[in-house]
Amino acid sequence: MNYLMLSAGRRCELLKDFRASMESGSRLIATDLSPYAPALYFADKQILVPRIDDPQYMDTVLNICREEKINAVTTLIDPEIMLLAENREKFEALGVEVLAPYTETARLCFDKYEMYRYLTKCGVRTPRTWGSFAEAKEAIDAGELSFPVFVKPRRGSGSVGARKIFDLEALHAAFEQDESLICQELMTGEGAFDLDADIYIDTVSHEPVAIFSKRKISTTIGGANKTISFKDERLFAFIRDALKHFRFNGPIDADFFYKDGEYYLSEVNPRFGGAYLHAYGAGVDFIKLIEKNLHGEANEPQIGQYEEGVVMMMYDSVVIKKAKELAK
Amino acid sequence: MNYLMLSAGRRCELLKDFRASMESGSRLIATDLSPYAPALYFADKQILVPRIDDPQYMDTVLNICREEKINAVTTLIDPEIMLLAENREKFEALGVEVLAPYTETARLCFDKYEMYRYLTKCGVRTPRTWGSFAEAKEAIDAGELSFPVFVKPRRGSGSVGARKIFDLEALHAAFEQDESLICQELMTGEGAFDLDADIYIDTVSHEPVAIFSKRKISTTIGGANKTISFKDERLFAFIRDALKHFRFNGPIDADFFYKDGEYYLSEVNPRFGGAYLHAYGAGVDFIKLIEKNLHGEANEPQIGQYEEGVVMMMYDSVVIKKAKELAK
Repeated sequence: MNYLMLSAGRRCELLKDFRASMESGSRLIATDLSPYAPALYFADKQILVPRIDDPQYMDTVLNICREEKINAVTTLIDPEIMLLAENREKFEALGVEVLAPYTETARLCFDKYEMYRYLTKCGVRTPRTWGSFAEAKEAIDAGELSFPVFVKPRRGSGSVGARKIFDLEALHAAFEQDESLICQELMTGEGAFDLDADIYIDTVSHEPVAIFSKRKISTTIGGANKTISFKDERLFAFIRDALKHFRFNGPIDADFFYKDGEYYLSEVNPRFGGAYLHAYGAGVDFIKLIEKNLHGEANEPQIGQYEEGVVMMMYDSVVIKKAKELAK
Repeated sequence: MNYLMLSAGRRCELLKDFRASMESGSRLIATDLSPYAPALYFADKQILVPRIDDPQYMDTVLNICREEKINAVTTLIDPEIMLLAENREKFEALGVEVLAPYTETARLCFDKYEMYRYLTKCGVRTPRTWGSFAEAKEAIDAGELSFPVFVKPRRGSGSVGARKIFDLEALHAAFEQDESLICQELMTGEGAFDLDADIYIDTVSHEPVAIFSKRKISTTIGGANKTISFKDERLFAFIRDALKHFRFNGPIDADFFYKDGEYYLSEVNPRFGGAYLHAYGAGVDFIKLIEKNLHGEANEPQIGQYEEGVVMMMYDSVVIKKAKELAK
């Protein structure tokens, strides 16, 4: 199989894992706009492309698909996911599987207030959310919401701009500065924790067939990511139920809260998550699942088929290249 | 040779490089207070130790030196450097080389205002620095300093708390909040850049015998570290001259500015710098230099013996361990 990994950036380890798992005869092509994207150098071939908002961008990518006989395409950055979703038919016309959600689902993932409304409508537990200062104040006055609260940009990526707010004045100032904020109840308290799951949605059966869940290890040392795998059939059931309301396709990474005995869906990043490496290191291999799908076969569900207590510790590594060895 | 790397933390790649370079029969022992310090798992043996401020800490370390027949010790964290410097004689009594500066030099490295005064006294170019709001205001009133200025904590580590300040009111507020700040002229302007150098000070000849200098690659993509090697005999001469005034011992990492045709010394981290990996990847191998010193021989200077234009790109890697495989 031939794979195209768009906007490869710094995801070197993912590309390493990908190539280590591909069946023999496969090729992995990576793109980026910068020759200083280290992940390029872990692919079988690296291609520099324009910015994703360049009018020529999509044609460039479709041409690569033709020339390299690509079987599946995905991206490692959020802003490109909608682009793949919206151009799905053009890729499919070339026989390319788009490992990205369908348009309506992609739209929800990148509008956190719409996502909240949709989840609530579907009866999927999610933190209560307010879309304006007026609505949040009303909830506070009615005793439905109390400080501290949590705010984040409606269309943010990652945790940029997400923060706790401790009083009404600060909340007002925050919304004055950025009216696109959303305000959420804080999901903390005795026994509460946040967690995330790497999930693979089969592109043939359209069911989640693999789930790997992990939580942070609380340590005062370093800010770096340290996570430990765990399993809970109730979480898996919650995920299966929640995902019925969406049209994902391939790998996703979803964030959850656990509070007062219940799981809550927080956000979905509809792509290979930054910590997929943990799933892979624990034996949950999405590449094999993708491969089987590309051969036209549905995967047998393997949800929870991994060990508990597997620890991942992140650190900085480097790629060294002479200037003349950089992609052109 | 047997090496002891204290507070190994996340410096996995450094430990990998270290072990790859050691002569055969050598062993690398790593310590940390946390079993979740991933670098532990790249050593030949990992030992969990108390916090560095624990009264038992130094005895624990000295015991490890005895039991493991350690030939050289170093640390990868700043707060421990003074501790090594102050206990140098105890280590030397066990035949252990302390790869850390002598006490007076260590003290200067961790008090940026004292360092400024000392460099100025020695005639080594360094950014002009003021140690209080009153002094900075006087300089501003006299037209010797203009906004924006740069402030940072007098005893900070890395770039924590370092920031630009744009007017007098903000400068006053900054000093009100933290009177240990220092205020510096901003080293920017046409053609100005900052750079750093990994330097090895021979423990036998007490001379700098290797210098590897690199600068940031300016790219709008990602916040990650991307650097490129360069060489300038004038920089090397400046470094050799500046270091005559100090008593370093082993690897250091020094930060510089280049402005209006001159180099300026900014700060010295008297330990393996975070980007030593770049030096190593470009063929500048401090481990071999340490080894020769431990055999009682001085190294021939090899300053500038590397290629220009070697690029380093940083990325996140991971260590995966089952809970039962963690250090105890």
